[in-house]
Amino acid sequence: MHATLSGDVVRAGERARERFYDSSGYGHPVDSGSLELAPVEAAHLLYRGDLDAVEGPDGAAMDFRAFLSSAAVSEIAFLVYKDLRDRGFYLSPARAGWSDSSAARAAVDDPAVDFVVYPRGSGPWDDEVAYRVGVVSEREAVPASGLGDLVLAVVDEEGALTYLQTEHREVSGTSEADLPTGVSGELLSDRSLLWDPPAAIYDLGFYGQPLDDRDGDVIQLSLLEASYLAREGVLDVEGGVAAVVERGREVEGERFDRRLRVYESLRERGLVPKTGYKFGADFRTYSDVQSVDDLGHSELLIRVLAGDHTFSPRDLALDVRLAHGVRKTMAFALVGDEDDTADTDDSDGIEWLSVTRLTP
Amino acid sequence: MHATLSGDVVRAGERARERFYDSSGYGHPVDSGSLELAPVEAAHLLYRGDLDAVEGPDGAAMDFRAFLSSAAVSEIAFLVYKDLRDRGFYLSPARAGWSDSSAARAAVDDPAVDFVVYPRGSGPWDDEVAYRVGVVSEREAVPASGLGDLVLAVVDEEGALTYLQTEHREVSGTSEADLPTGVSGELLSDRSLLWDPPAAIYDLGFYGQPLDDRDGDVIQLSLLEASYLAREGVLDVEGGVAAVVERGREVEGERFDRRLRVYESLRERGLVPKTGYKFGADFRTYSDVQSVDDLGHSELLIRVLAGDHTFSPRDLALDVRLAHGVRKTMAFALVGDEDDTADTDDSDGIEWLSVTRLTP
Repeated sequence: MHATLSGDVVRAGERARERFYDSSGYGHPVDSGSLELAPVEAAHLLYRGDLDAVEGPDGAAMDFRAFLSSAAVSEIAFLVYKDLRDRGFYLSPARAGWSDSSAARAAVDDPAVDFVVYPRGSGPWDDEVAYRVGVVSEREAVPASGLGDLVLAVVDEEGALTYLQTEHREVSGTSEADLPTGVSGELLSDRSLLWDPPAAIYDLGFYGQPLDDRDGDVIQLSLLEASYLAREGVLDVEGGVAAVVERGREVEGERFDRRLRVYESLRERGLVPKTGYKFGADFRTYSDVQSVDDLGHSELLIRVLAGDHTFSPRDLALDVRLAHGVRKTMAFALVGDEDDTADTDDSDGIEWLSVTRLTP
Repeated sequence: MHATLSGDVVRAGERARERFYDSSGYGHPVDSGSLELAPVEAAHLLYRGDLDAVEGPDGAAMDFRAFLSSAAVSEIAFLVYKDLRDRGFYLSPARAGWSDSSAARAAVDDPAVDFVVYPRGSGPWDDEVAYRVGVVSEREAVPASGLGDLVLAVVDEEGALTYLQTEHREVSGTSEADLPTGVSGELLSDRSLLWDPPAAIYDLGFYGQPLDDRDGDVIQLSLLEASYLAREGVLDVEGGVAAVVERGREVEGERFDRRLRVYESLRERGLVPKTGYKFGADFRTYSDVQSVDDLGHSELLIRVLAGDHTFSPRDLALDVRLAHGVRKTMAFALVGDEDDTADTDDSDGIEWLSVTRLTP
């Protein structure tokens, strides 16, 4: 069977169309009746022995080895393509004009998508998409802005694959506590102390931590908790909110402001954020706190990031694996510039992104 | 009982010495028969109610609340001191001239040490040290150079404590494989392929990964593995070692050189390093590989760092927790400048540091 590489397309004739597209979903049929294949598809057909060779622009015949070593095909794209085929999926490279279904066309328009994967048993002739897959090497930087409706297929340096499902998500809970106002507190260098607080602060609101487990008289508040409670009028501290926020910035710079915005947003959405330090995260969250005596399991681990963050796949793998190991979901709070959100009243400028391990 | 703050010492009389030092190991007896206390010790005595007040330089009496809010005592040092006392330990602040035993004096000489903790049942009058403890807030940067014979007591933003034991360690194993030389390989953009390698490369040496699990004909080597095997004369690749290393640097810059030095050192010590990507680390290591058919559990997770690295306690917590969850030990390979090691023939300039969670 004859196949010729021309630019970034491998062209084959009518028999190839019947054998490869009609029966197995490879390539893109063209009006003339012949078949266009992406190089990664041709590489897979060579690998399987369904094609013997692809003729290069110089007329030389390339076998699988020569073709994979050429610049025509990315080795990591090939590894992912092969793995998804091995798992029983039909898939198409994301190329403008190659997909007929509207679901696939929407995926192709997203520059982060490399492959459109159809549900098992479906193919390019159906109007259904199972996964929108982006291929990255473990050493590539991945912009957060491209994630959210994408499965990242990460190829590690030894060629093994991990799939990470990224999703935009809504974050909400039912925690709420009626708190008194004007509770007096003292500001220390890295926390605030309430020497004789009303029980509701800790017992119902789950703010702070008793200085001593045996005796809940003194409550330590983190600077985030103190800032929030001061803004809400619950906490009365010398210098007011400004003094607490100033202290927070001294301790951790502009990260403090970003974390405070996320803390406030979580509280307003009915979640209780507590430190995620032991999990290497900013927060762990409880969605339905009525009383600390009856705390459920915390569901999310949250890492606060600037909106223009780029992920290293290795860091992502670490976060997602740890969260999974403690039966929580890893979520990222992407915090946009304050200015960008000034004119959109209903948004707090925070985008929530969850990332979980996927076995396709 | 009268106690007076003077500079960074709280002085008390002979009765204090009997009651606090002789019976409970607080403070440092001086020749005059009286007792000197560090502010953190005085704070703890105030907290317990054993002291009513400390007189400040201005003559004003400070109770626990006033003393803890003053600049005389660090709140995070107090939290750690209190926690260790609660756990039944006697401990001394690390101050030159305050310790009589040689073990304690050695600890005091280390600037990273804040507290010398004696074994349960022992005190400052014995010559034994259980832990050398350094106190840090979760937001402090911790220089790697200060770690190795230190327990880090990390205070998170809500005042909860985690203890991390840091130790210098020797790394060694018994893996060894007799490999043929002159095996031909091909260099792709981010790996090397062996199209028809001798079985020993993968089966005995555990180098690389078969392209296809069902069929081990083609082996993918990472660029680290390819560099090492090319240097050893096992791998024959166009352009030689230099070409592989060059490719590695294109992919990840100077980190590649650092990782290669650690890879080589591990192989030479009889360990098999494989990618640690799935655990967010550089390598996982197997110490006794005779054959891939009989692989044991990998024991270490290794992260490669520059010798002058500073840790964020939160990142440390993440690494240590993940390693624990997969029954491995977290180790850091601190790689010094190549120049620093040129004149010490027996060293490869790499310092190995393990970090584990500790419950004192």
